[in-house]
Amino acid sequence: MPHALRQRIFDELDALEIVDPHTHINPHAPASTTLADVMGYHYYTELAHSAGLARQAIEEPELPPREKVRRLIEHLGPLENTIQYSWLIEMLREFFGFYGARLTIGNWEAVYEHASDVMARPHWAETVLKKSKLRAVFLTNEFDDPLTGFDTSVYVPCLRTDDLVFHLAKPEIRARLEKATGVSLRDAATLRDAIGKLFDHFRRRNVRACAISLPPSFAPRKVSAAAADSAIADLLSKGQSGDPQRLDDATNFAFWTLAEYCQEFALPFDLMIGVNRGVYESGVYQGRDLYDSRVSLIQYRELFNAFPRVTFPVSVLASVTNQELVSYAWIFPNVITSGHWWYSNTPTYIENDLAARLEAVPQTKQIGYYSDMYKLEFALPKFRMYKRILAKVLAERFVLDRAWSEERAVALGKQVLADNTETIFGYSG
Amino acid sequence: MPHALRQRIFDELDALEIVDPHTHINPHAPASTTLADVMGYHYYTELAHSAGLARQAIEEPELPPREKVRRLIEHLGPLENTIQYSWLIEMLREFFGFYGARLTIGNWEAVYEHASDVMARPHWAETVLKKSKLRAVFLTNEFDDPLTGFDTSVYVPCLRTDDLVFHLAKPEIRARLEKATGVSLRDAATLRDAIGKLFDHFRRRNVRACAISLPPSFAPRKVSAAAADSAIADLLSKGQSGDPQRLDDATNFAFWTLAEYCQEFALPFDLMIGVNRGVYESGVYQGRDLYDSRVSLIQYRELFNAFPRVTFPVSVLASVTNQELVSYAWIFPNVITSGHWWYSNTPTYIENDLAARLEAVPQTKQIGYYSDMYKLEFALPKFRMYKRILAKVLAERFVLDRAWSEERAVALGKQVLADNTETIFGYSG
Amino acid sequence: MPHALRQRIFDELDALEIVDPHTHINPHAPASTTLADVMGYHYYTELAHSAGLARQAIEEPELPPREKVRRLIEHLGPLENTIQYSWLIEMLREFFGFYGARLTIGNWEAVYEHASDVMARPHWAETVLKKSKLRAVFLTNEFDDPLTGFDTSVYVPCLRTDDLVFHLAKPEIRARLEKATGVSLRDAATLRDAIGKLFDHFRRRNVRACAISLPPSFAPRKVSAAAADSAIADLLSKGQSGDPQRLDDATNFAFWTLAEYCQEFALPFDLMIGVNRGVYESGVYQGRDLYDSRVSLIQYRELFNAFPRVTFPVSVLASVTNQELVSYAWIFPNVITSGHWWYSNTPTYIENDLAARLEAVPQTKQIGYYSDMYKLEFALPKFRMYKRILAKVLAERFVLDRAWSEERAVALGKQVLADNTETIFGYSG
Repeated sequence: MPHALRQRIFDELDALEIVDPHTHINPHAPASTTLADVMGYHYYTELAHSAGLARQAIEEPELPPREKVRRLIEHLGPLENTIQYSWLIEMLREFFGFYGARLTIGNWEAVYEHASDVMARPHWAETVLKKSKLRAVFLTNEFDDPLTGFDTSVYVPCLRTDDLVFHLAKPEIRARLEKATGVSLRDAATLRDAIGKLFDHFRRRNVRACAISLPPSFAPRKVSAAAADSAIADLLSKGQSGDPQRLDDATNFAFWTLAEYCQEFALPFDLMIGVNRGVYESGVYQGRDLYDSRVSLIQYRELFNAFPRVTFPVSVLASVTNQELVSYAWIFPNVITSGHWWYSNTPTYIENDLAARLEAVPQTKQIGYYSDMYKLEFALPKFRMYKRILAKVLAERFVLDRAWSEERAVALGKQVLADNTETIFGYSG
Repeated sequence: MPHALRQRIFDELDALEIVDPHTHINPHAPASTTLADVMGYHYYTELAHSAGLARQAIEEPELPPREKVRRLIEHLGPLENTIQYSWLIEMLREFFGFYGARLTIGNWEAVYEHASDVMARPHWAETVLKKSKLRAVFLTNEFDDPLTGFDTSVYVPCLRTDDLVFHLAKPEIRARLEKATGVSLRDAATLRDAIGKLFDHFRRRNVRACAISLPPSFAPRKVSAAAADSAIADLLSKGQSGDPQRLDDATNFAFWTLAEYCQEFALPFDLMIGVNRGVYESGVYQGRDLYDSRVSLIQYRELFNAFPRVTFPVSVLASVTNQELVSYAWIFPNVITSGHWWYSNTPTYIENDLAARLEAVPQTKQIGYYSDMYKLEFALPKFRMYKRILAKVLAERFVLDRAWSEERAVALGKQVLADNTETIFGYSG
Repeated sequence: MPHALRQRIFDELDALEIVDPHTHINPHAPASTTLADVMGYHYYTELAHSAGLARQAIEEPELPPREKVRRLIEHLGPLENTIQYSWLIEMLREFFGFYGARLTIGNWEAVYEHASDVMARPHWAETVLKKSKLRAVFLTNEFDDPLTGFDTSVYVPCLRTDDLVFHLAKPEIRARLEKATGVSLRDAATLRDAIGKLFDHFRRRNVRACAISLPPSFAPRKVSAAAADSAIADLLSKGQSGDPQRLDDATNFAFWTLAEYCQEFALPFDLMIGVNRGVYESGVYQGRDLYDSRVSLIQYRELFNAFPRVTFPVSVLASVTNQELVSYAWIFPNVITSGHWWYSNTPTYIENDLAARLEAVPQTKQIGYYSDMYKLEFALPKFRMYKRILAKVLAERFVLDRAWSEERAVALGKQVLADNTETIFGYSG
């Protein structure tokens, strides 16, 4: 009975059209062209490397895609238990008619050929969107992205701001900012002007969110005008070798300014809290970041109080921070629980974190899931994983434990999976 | 089978008479008089506010109770998924014959009227106690509470000491202490005398526990006599603008003195660890506190070693601290696991925390649950929630996983739910 | 169905021969001789003490074993819920024909007598190994252990190094080191030489791992040659009263040197992270240690990067650190998840931690379990507990949730339970 119940709830959820509120899709090349695009996803390269594959073997310059896939296939055995491997298999089954349980050195070539043929068909990206029931995917755009050449109602711009906050001391970042805005950086006021021009530009192109990823040590604070001017002056004259306290002031000034513009432009500010970049120095591309789970949302106390009208969808990297996220979203009107990020995007953590959210955060304040994908083919298996867990939690903890009707459970699932994304980000297709 | 088993174990547990070892009941007005008392519980006001209800709408001076309820009802929709909402519905069903699944703008008025009528019946509080199978509820009494005018075997005094420890620098607190004890504060010795008089007073009125809530940063330490005198002198002359180190010495002296009196009076000292007060400055009444989950019981190492004869029932605010609580209660004879507090009082966290305790803490050292309620009507649904989870854990992890007999599982449930409270606090009705 | 499925998977796993990769077995007296050896295990003494048994009652000098057991039996009642108690009962059933559910003051004497007789039979240790399907157990050897007089293919030496790293400032430790190696400590170079001689000695006796337990505050770092010489000079002249910074340099130099030798000798370095020693000063023998769960693997960043060719099987004391362990093992090729240590060795924590590992760490990089036992009789019930949980996770999360075949689930269980231990430590019997 419970298993059939889970399946029925899953089927209802799986029939819904959805918007994916955070991806790294390139709107000019949203779908894959060979299995190398699929298996080049950092989950496969980093896990294969962790299990013994040399970084050089897959990061060799000008490595042909077919050879890259072959080398990865040789090292996939140790990964077959992982949930990430299950994404790959489910995707191959759904999109390319694969019917095995394992992709091996004995069967990969036919799959590679067939997938290449399928991906080369006209309108492949649209086919993937349709099969995945995706109405739209949110992007992750550099601040100087021209945002042209694609349909912004399907590929929805989001302004990613890590560089503006954490790398403004680098001359190349400032050069890009000046070029994008036409503003010559001289002080705090001109930095504010420049950022305003970015918001103007993005607004004209249907931007739905401002977003940033943040290290565990970050605790945003308002910087006085005078301190901001000193900080920017120092940053302009000395770059990254400036006084650390002033660099930190500049970081906080830039961050606070973004929050102010989010308020002015009524734009949600996605906070992705907790990542340490480059921890494993010799790791593969995108497989070097880790974290320190000793982070607290108390670090965001001043921010959450200062911007009651800015909506903050918050993602946390470590599951041990999830209870704080639940509690802060339960109390602060402007804090929203958002997805299951990266190292917390595996079933056991999703199940615990999701169950805790569904019990104590208003149902209108939960963004269930985003895929974080780089290629469109991954939305289907990643969202399916989430929907299976959502169905499990609804079946066990609402229908069985709390005697909810199945219909009511499905309605709650629909709200966190589909409806809230559109409401919170003001997306209307 | 498992579900029927859970139900049978639940039924056995639900038949037991219990003592509620921590509440905020006012013994002079223990039960509700209208639904405004029920829905004014901070869980509903803070969740409704978090989901969009303006604080002003429900904190308007002289707002009639009926209108307050109407305004809350309008904003309950987003809360219907929460476990707190389920408490409300279960209470309405059990006490007021409500038979719906939702309280809405369409049906609330009849419920309001009927509830008001029922609550106005003679001996309503006694009716609630009886229906809830409550033998007694422990109170949370200010240190200067006269403790008169109620039956202390049913409404059992507990000395709450936050003000003595954390707010003694405020003149109004000192004035209240002097008035209550007749002792003029001059130094450490007179503070000790004054506190002793409070313990005498409470002892004469059947006190069963001393209690305090503590911020995550607190790490109690013994202060030397000389430092204590300096600290109290500073506090008396400068109040809250005194030297921070000396204020901290005064805080620790007051805390340590309480522990000494707990030893002398053989009184358990309830430690409720981890709350940051006033984090959300603009929140509704009692809806402003949050926490930093980065707290460790290692901060209490000196205390637990210094007072081997004081029993410390310990509550932790964050579930991530529960494993430390399990481990400390497993090793320290004087550490007791106590309830599931506030932000950890939701099913997913209770289930994990309870299961871990039942597996590794001696069964005599676990206080299963307290309601923390402000009005008597809440004990029934809150304890029922706990009993359902207790039955689930006993069924799955003891009867099924460990092949215990059902009878033995029920006996363990009874011990942590009912018996230990009476033994640990020396309550005999 | 799920329960039968769990049972079938368990039966398959329980049929396997295993190597226990971490114990405290004394190879000269590996098995028990009376129930006092069994019940003297710190889990029983510390839990009984926590529940009310005076330390003096069981640590009285020259207490006869029979009387020690009697005193413990009198205080076992409060422990009957614990998983540790279940180990005792299962062991008594399997090895000594006990058929009750409880060991009480009414039935213990016959058990004691019978167990003594059985334990006195010829080849009792071999009988226990065989019945427990143990091919070998890894030891925990002091650095100056002569390692003679036992079969190192069954009792496999591991070099335990806590004293070398954290207690080298004590003259008695240095005296033991000089005696064991013949090297006179004068500076960093001679310390390095001495440690090298230990590795030579252990290598000749089939050593399979270097191991150490580490406090939560430890964050290893490379110390310059000059600083190392200063530090060792300070330590030699002033012992434990030396400059704290220099003592810390010496600690880090010794630790780093061990890692260098692990690289040279291709020996895995077991890191057991997170214990605070002696927290409960008046506790029973081996029942005084606790922890601060605020620890992060980011503290090991420099180490993991500096020694890519050293395999680090990592155990964490607190379950809240498990997700970091999962993530670091997922990214760093040289980090291995290892067992469920001490305060995390209870079913609820094992189940959560294991499930998270199986979903995201390559299956070749997980050492499922070790017993940590002091007497051979404990491997059977402790591994059985683990195998039941492993079977549960495989049944629920792989066969049911992910539609794996039962055969494939068993193969994954076998890999983490049995195969990896042999591969990772290079054990070939």
